[in-house]
Amino acid sequence: MNHADNDTQAVKLTGEEVAKHSSRDDCWVIIHGRAYDVTEFMPEHPGGPKIILKYAGKDATEEYAPIHPPDTLDKYLDQSKHLGEVDMKTVEQETKEEDPEEQERQERIKRMPILEQCYNLMDFEAVARRVMKKTAWAYYSSGADDEITMRENHSAFHKIWFRPRVLVDVEKIDTSTTMLGTKVDMPFYVTATALGKLGNPEGEVVLTRGARKHNVIQMLPTLASCSFDEIMDAAEGDQVQWLQLYVNKNRDITKRIIEHAEARGCKGLFITVDAPQLGRREKDMRSKFSDVGSNVQSTSGSDVDRSQGAARAISSFIDPSLQWSDLPWFLSVTKMPIILKGVQRVEDVIRAIGAGVHGVVLSNHGGRQLDTARSGIEILAEVMPELRRLGLDNRIEVFIDGGIRRATDIIKALCLGATGVGIGRPFLYAMSAYGLPGVDRAMQLLKDEMEMNMRLIGCSSVDQLGPDFVDARGLSMHATTVPSDTLGLGVYDPLVGPRESKL
Amino acid sequence: MNHADNDTQAVKLTGEEVAKHSSRDDCWVIIHGRAYDVTEFMPEHPGGPKIILKYAGKDATEEYAPIHPPDTLDKYLDQSKHLGEVDMKTVEQETKEEDPEEQERQERIKRMPILEQCYNLMDFEAVARRVMKKTAWAYYSSGADDEITMRENHSAFHKIWFRPRVLVDVEKIDTSTTMLGTKVDMPFYVTATALGKLGNPEGEVVLTRGARKHNVIQMLPTLASCSFDEIMDAAEGDQVQWLQLYVNKNRDITKRIIEHAEARGCKGLFITVDAPQLGRREKDMRSKFSDVGSNVQSTSGSDVDRSQGAARAISSFIDPSLQWSDLPWFLSVTKMPIILKGVQRVEDVIRAIGAGVHGVVLSNHGGRQLDTARSGIEILAEVMPELRRLGLDNRIEVFIDGGIRRATDIIKALCLGATGVGIGRPFLYAMSAYGLPGVDRAMQLLKDEMEMNMRLIGCSSVDQLGPDFVDARGLSMHATTVPSDTLGLGVYDPLVGPRESKL
Amino acid sequence: MNHADNDTQAVKLTGEEVAKHSSRDDCWVIIHGRAYDVTEFMPEHPGGPKIILKYAGKDATEEYAPIHPPDTLDKYLDQSKHLGEVDMKTVEQETKEEDPEEQERQERIKRMPILEQCYNLMDFEAVARRVMKKTAWAYYSSGADDEITMRENHSAFHKIWFRPRVLVDVEKIDTSTTMLGTKVDMPFYVTATALGKLGNPEGEVVLTRGARKHNVIQMLPTLASCSFDEIMDAAEGDQVQWLQLYVNKNRDITKRIIEHAEARGCKGLFITVDAPQLGRREKDMRSKFSDVGSNVQSTSGSDVDRSQGAARAISSFIDPSLQWSDLPWFLSVTKMPIILKGVQRVEDVIRAIGAGVHGVVLSNHGGRQLDTARSGIEILAEVMPELRRLGLDNRIEVFIDGGIRRATDIIKALCLGATGVGIGRPFLYAMSAYGLPGVDRAMQLLKDEMEMNMRLIGCSSVDQLGPDFVDARGLSMHATTVPSDTLGLGVYDPLVGPRESKL
Amino acid sequence: MNHADNDTQAVKLTGEEVAKHSSRDDCWVIIHGRAYDVTEFMPEHPGGPKIILKYAGKDATEEYAPIHPPDTLDKYLDQSKHLGEVDMKTVEQETKEEDPEEQERQERIKRMPILEQCYNLMDFEAVARRVMKKTAWAYYSSGADDEITMRENHSAFHKIWFRPRVLVDVEKIDTSTTMLGTKVDMPFYVTATALGKLGNPEGEVVLTRGARKHNVIQMLPTLASCSFDEIMDAAEGDQVQWLQLYVNKNRDITKRIIEHAEARGCKGLFITVDAPQLGRREKDMRSKFSDVGSNVQSTSGSDVDRSQGAARAISSFIDPSLQWSDLPWFLSVTKMPIILKGVQRVEDVIRAIGAGVHGVVLSNHGGRQLDTARSGIEILAEVMPELRRLGLDNRIEVFIDGGIRRATDIIKALCLGATGVGIGRPFLYAMSAYGLPGVDRAMQLLKDEMEMNMRLIGCSSVDQLGPDFVDARGLSMHATTVPSDTLGLGVYDPLVGPRESKL
Repeated sequence: MNHADNDTQAVKLTGEEVAKHSSRDDCWVIIHGRAYDVTEFMPEHPGGPKIILKYAGKDATEEYAPIHPPDTLDKYLDQSKHLGEVDMKTVEQETKEEDPEEQERQERIKRMPILEQCYNLMDFEAVARRVMKKTAWAYYSSGADDEITMRENHSAFHKIWFRPRVLVDVEKIDTSTTMLGTKVDMPFYVTATALGKLGNPEGEVVLTRGARKHNVIQMLPTLASCSFDEIMDAAEGDQVQWLQLYVNKNRDITKRIIEHAEARGCKGLFITVDAPQLGRREKDMRSKFSDVGSNVQSTSGSDVDRSQGAARAISSFIDPSLQWSDLPWFLSVTKMPIILKGVQRVEDVIRAIGAGVHGVVLSNHGGRQLDTARSGIEILAEVMPELRRLGLDNRIEVFIDGGIRRATDIIKALCLGATGVGIGRPFLYAMSAYGLPGVDRAMQLLKDEMEMNMRLIGCSSVDQLGPDFVDARGLSMHATTVPSDTLGLGVYDPLVGPRESKL
Repeated sequence: MNHADNDTQAVKLTGEEVAKHSSRDDCWVIIHGRAYDVTEFMPEHPGGPKIILKYAGKDATEEYAPIHPPDTLDKYLDQSKHLGEVDMKTVEQETKEEDPEEQERQERIKRMPILEQCYNLMDFEAVARRVMKKTAWAYYSSGADDEITMRENHSAFHKIWFRPRVLVDVEKIDTSTTMLGTKVDMPFYVTATALGKLGNPEGEVVLTRGARKHNVIQMLPTLASCSFDEIMDAAEGDQVQWLQLYVNKNRDITKRIIEHAEARGCKGLFITVDAPQLGRREKDMRSKFSDVGSNVQSTSGSDVDRSQGAARAISSFIDPSLQWSDLPWFLSVTKMPIILKGVQRVEDVIRAIGAGVHGVVLSNHGGRQLDTARSGIEILAEVMPELRRLGLDNRIEVFIDGGIRRATDIIKALCLGATGVGIGRPFLYAMSAYGLPGVDRAMQLLKDEMEMNMRLIGCSSVDQLGPDFVDARGLSMHATTVPSDTLGLGVYDPLVGPRESKL
Repeated sequence: MNHADNDTQAVKLTGEEVAKHSSRDDCWVIIHGRAYDVTEFMPEHPGGPKIILKYAGKDATEEYAPIHPPDTLDKYLDQSKHLGEVDMKTVEQETKEEDPEEQERQERIKRMPILEQCYNLMDFEAVARRVMKKTAWAYYSSGADDEITMRENHSAFHKIWFRPRVLVDVEKIDTSTTMLGTKVDMPFYVTATALGKLGNPEGEVVLTRGARKHNVIQMLPTLASCSFDEIMDAAEGDQVQWLQLYVNKNRDITKRIIEHAEARGCKGLFITVDAPQLGRREKDMRSKFSDVGSNVQSTSGSDVDRSQGAARAISSFIDPSLQWSDLPWFLSVTKMPIILKGVQRVEDVIRAIGAGVHGVVLSNHGGRQLDTARSGIEILAEVMPELRRLGLDNRIEVFIDGGIRRATDIIKALCLGATGVGIGRPFLYAMSAYGLPGVDRAMQLLKDEMEMNMRLIGCSSVDQLGPDFVDARGLSMHATTVPSDTLGLGVYDPLVGPRESKL
Repeated sequence: MNHADNDTQAVKLTGEEVAKHSSRDDCWVIIHGRAYDVTEFMPEHPGGPKIILKYAGKDATEEYAPIHPPDTLDKYLDQSKHLGEVDMKTVEQETKEEDPEEQERQERIKRMPILEQCYNLMDFEAVARRVMKKTAWAYYSSGADDEITMRENHSAFHKIWFRPRVLVDVEKIDTSTTMLGTKVDMPFYVTATALGKLGNPEGEVVLTRGARKHNVIQMLPTLASCSFDEIMDAAEGDQVQWLQLYVNKNRDITKRIIEHAEARGCKGLFITVDAPQLGRREKDMRSKFSDVGSNVQSTSGSDVDRSQGAARAISSFIDPSLQWSDLPWFLSVTKMPIILKGVQRVEDVIRAIGAGVHGVVLSNHGGRQLDTARSGIEILAEVMPELRRLGLDNRIEVFIDGGIRRATDIIKALCLGATGVGIGRPFLYAMSAYGLPGVDRAMQLLKDEMEMNMRLIGCSSVDQLGPDFVDARGLSMHATTVPSDTLGLGVYDPLVGPRESKL
């Protein structure tokens, strides 16, 4: 931490003093024991001024910490506004209101299942949902609009069925593979997800340690709660990490980030291309209204309030004008392989090959951006046969992410031609519920499932997997059923089994 | 208002006097403070004589107002039956019975969510359902028969999935387009829906004001609660309005309506062709039986009662013999562009082009007419490729309506070739729940969604949208699943996640 | 009634006397006030001896009446066993146990909706389910095995969607048509269903009167509760009736039935070909165990009990060896047109044409015989194009039955080529709940729906209907969805709408 | 039983003495009244040492018996560790804790439906679920991962619909057929399922007796609770049995098993090829955690506990390197026909024919191995047309198993080309709930259904069945529906039928 500025101060500030600056025109806040003058900054705050005013003259650390990397203030607030240390003993402790929801959550935490009761990735989600703070859960679990794509992502795998072969020697199973030149123990990587500290006070470094233990790659998010360097520092030995990049409107900042990442040893640059604007996630937005108690109606619907959940607050810097013609510049400023994350149609994969990038991630951003966008696995089934037809399938590495919950999902993706798959939320949930042991067990369970299912499909190493092992004909079918015959179903007298005898 | 007739009366009528005329043979009613002799009119009343008799000798205003435009009495009741003003102080106030349902509704109104809690068009419907009067809700929300088509209308959009393109400059998004020569800010219009005052005491003019604010077009309904002129008067500046027309058996009346509309500046004439008779809507019909308390059984099933909901009461004038050969006459009596509203097969679109009309609305009347009629979006996917094949796609403007709830729905329609889409119920619900601010917010939310999703699909203006951006192969699939295996499903012991520990 | 035998008896029998004969070796029962010696008959009783023994020495009328036509005893019990009249005043009244289920049913009857609250055919079923006796309901409502076909029958219609045409003169709608030479007002007939007195004490004659009123044809069931002549007698004027025939192993009996029917004026002979054995209907079978209270287990599973519901009890006479080569005989013994009821594949329709019969009913016996047999409407869609291809479509009249609940269902069948459709259960339910007024209203509702929907599809008479008006491509699709992802669905946190404010 | 070893002991051991040996380093247990020193064996115990330690120094019979054949100790524990008889009167009776779950189960057993209330195979499952011990139920009823394949197995049959023919003589129905040279009364066999004593104290011999009564074949499981010889001994007369074989890593053991089976008269050797490792069955695994009460969290997720349900405990000997090249050896060591059980793609069936085996069972191991593997019936529909095309369909007998619950399922399989079908769980459930009478009734019900449905499809013997009688086009469709429109469905106001009147 480098909060050394103004640290030469003789006397610490007092809470009383800070508390005087509590208006829109004169606003100080305390963060991590230090005071800052945010009066001028307030209007530019990506999350809106309202949330700052709520803490004017007070200690804002608890709200601030999970959604801002520790170096944020150094980067974005001029040093002259750093007012120095505060004597925290003099700061009035806010007596929190008794929050019945929070009390219930604490009860649920006490009754948490033990880690060994989690047998698959869904189980961590089930536990996380019960023990996470509501707003944190809403941020992680929400998707775009009606969350149809978010759910389709996993559901799509159920449209693919196996054609196993038998009587093959499957005593030894090798689940290792190579991604962008790195040998990994399993064909998945930890994909980038924002705001890790919402789920765990240590944030993304927990995932770093888990990835290390199982020798898989972690992709660092631009919007991490930890700083980039903290996460890089948490890596051990020759552990490989990649960087996910939201491209800033200010390319100097972007360049600085890329160069720093390369200098620190990042082995892949994943440029997000499916998020020119971060999505509307209504579950996330709605979670903010928990404490609204009156029915005062606003007089104008146009004045749409700006507190639209975490996603939009943190993403205003993203450049919506990023385009194909920008790619040569990226290729010129780094030697890291460049991968486009969020490609969604075969035409764009072909164009990406032409542009000279090294890979694509077929992805819809975890269902958080465009609703009724297709799943990565469905796009994969469109892309690979066409690349093979054009002789382009070896020109690029194709990854997918979204909805992967079982080793069978991974195997299906590899059968259809993916180099590997990204997994995001499941590890976040494991981390949120159980910390590093959770992440460790989640990965171990996947490994167990992976070996078992490779064995059962009749393949002893991932290079043996191919389209022959799956029936994916149903994959592109987007069926809804005819709306139900409400009256007819209502009058049907359903069959019941044998009744118990009366005693 | 032009209730000036007989207004020269020296003395006002008294309630006592009116109350004497309370039989089938001698029936007066008070409406808006004036008395009318409806004895002779009663048998012709489209809603049946029963409802009039209920108010014989009494004040009928509350029942009358929402379902009759203010100029109705002038138009349909001979001036000789207008008996003049009543001294309302002398009219006995009916002490309404305590209605527990109404009390619950009033409670729900007190607990209404604030407007900012509505994040999408469905939310307004959720609120309206709770706070509207039961009969009004039933009239707005009901559909034909089993309401299968009504629900399919929205559900059909879920069978269409996006193929977005990435790395396109989407910094500036232009959602404007042109409909029948009018430049509008968004590719939707407020379609015609009847009886606006059931939801809001001001009626359709609320929608006029909302449309103005967002620069979109409003289509005026023949069966409005406000009079045509009231709605036209509510428009401001160069605000464009269209007229929806039910063709009267008496073409003189129809001609008068058309000429008046054109004179008042209407810019489009939408002739409804899917409603030779207004549909059976059982939810609406059933809502009338709320207060039936006895189990006296009628002795004959043939004497089907005539109080079949609002729809049928107000539509007896519609001409069921309207046919293609009538179109030249319409083209001869107006210069307004003529659009056929309710076309449902490609053959009829081609015929419409041949007949020289300027547009069609592919529509099933919001699912209120023929059940298991196809959705507008499905018909569109049948129509446009055929028009393109025949080189006819530029000869006509094609609109659709029905089931549009999300900007993604609008985008899908435009991708498949629609000029624009009509939206009806959602704005009614927004108006019923929150008045103009509701309509305003509903439109603003659509605009926000529209910009966001245009950006995410990779198009910066609506003219870039095309069939290439969607996978609509599943659209024409009308699947029901095999009826459930009740016993088998019943004995299946479903998987459950980790259990909570006991404390 | 012709119980004149032995009626010259001087003194009536007394209850006391009858009561002495109450054992398996000496068993008298009272029916309709007369005593019968059934000792020798008991072992041959199609419903098993057990049920007779239950009433040995007692009055069995209440149990007997609904499931035996009045002429049964004359036909099947030798005159010598007819013991004469009983003085019913001397017969001990059995004090029935208080049956809480029956009491609840009586309560439900008191709260029955009035007839006008029934707006469609499903509504009658909803009411009948509440007010019918449990065993009667079970007999009417049950289907084969898992009742999948029974439900598919109606559900199949939802896979057919309309392509209406507009701007056609539909002022006057003519729903009449001709079936086997008879002009009828609507294109449906009342198909044969057994045991009408289970639902209404008058039995099938109620349907006769309803059919008369609406000028549609009634098909008389072999297994009626009323005698054949009673039902014929109930017809008025030139009312047309058909006969449904289960072919008896004893062809003399069959011949007698056919000749009698022709002599009485029947205009069509519908030979049931889908029921060589009456189906297992578990709901029906299970309803018999209502009063079993002990858990004594039988020691052998092979001794399958014989009380397997009403269906099997009454059908043991049916000839399972009936075959194509029998058809010439039928054609030789009657001039009535012969129709095969229960044909289920196009090959058999073609064979039927070759055999010279006059029609077929594509039917699966209301889903009561073979489960996962296809619906009549689906078979129709297989049959008609093939007949047209072979130029055979005018050689035969093709009917369907099963699952018809809406006029739209009828219209769809006619569009696909049916001459008319049979409707069974809905009229039974209407009769069971409301008697003749129920049947009358049910038919009137169908007529109203029929006119309305003919108008909305753009056809003013049934001969205008054709395949062009429907999209039936989904009809032959028998889809089940992939079994649900229980854990995944369980952890999904569903979206919710705006919450109510706290007051 | 051959526990004769050390039986010459003069004095029996006392419970007190045994109880002294209750630690990991010195561990005795009592089984069936005899003591064993398992100290050295413990680490090798396939079910892990933990479960043994739980009974250290105590009587383990109740836990031991159902999951170990009686000859296990003789086979796997050196005679020197057999310590001799224990005076059971001196063994302290463990006072079991009151287990509310067990008490509830005992209550449910008292209220069990009588056997005659079971009308189909699902009914036995419904009863078994209520009356079986939780862990036994979990072992029998569980499947792999999300149990999608397990449920699909039965569900797949619902995608096949019948095309019955009519007017065929079906008076006499012959359901007999021939499998591997054996004439059987019905075209199914009792397939191998493990651990029969979990459901019934007598174990697999109950099934032997049922199979005998109905003249069908039983396949003996490798993992039976009874010893192989016990089951063979239970056969009567010329009753035919087959052997299911898990191939041991030690081929000497395998050879001994095969030779012994052939010597004892086994008529078929079914080598399981779909289980190189026994599957993860989470329901089974989860059932072990029932009594965990604390929320102590383990500190490492990698130390995955080894108590993973019964399946994995008992299967560690299976050879995962078994391969095609091993087949000649099997063919060389026995004259029994060899059938590969668990083949899942047509390529492997063709290869099996080439390898000279006599049959295949198309099976996914009851859905207990690889999730989203296809159902046997679906594989059959892939296999048979291809074999016919290649002229290979008479070179091999093709069986299927999985999901068969109705005679219609059997008929469908035979129509598509199967020689016969295996049925496993349903008979286990019948046995667990009702013992032999249950198995007897289950088979009788199947026979009744079989005759009925053969009659209704229009075939009097199984050789008449063919592809012509079914429409199986939907079989290979693996559809999921678009994830539900939660908000939209939530605001839809469903239709309701007529309301009851108020009294």
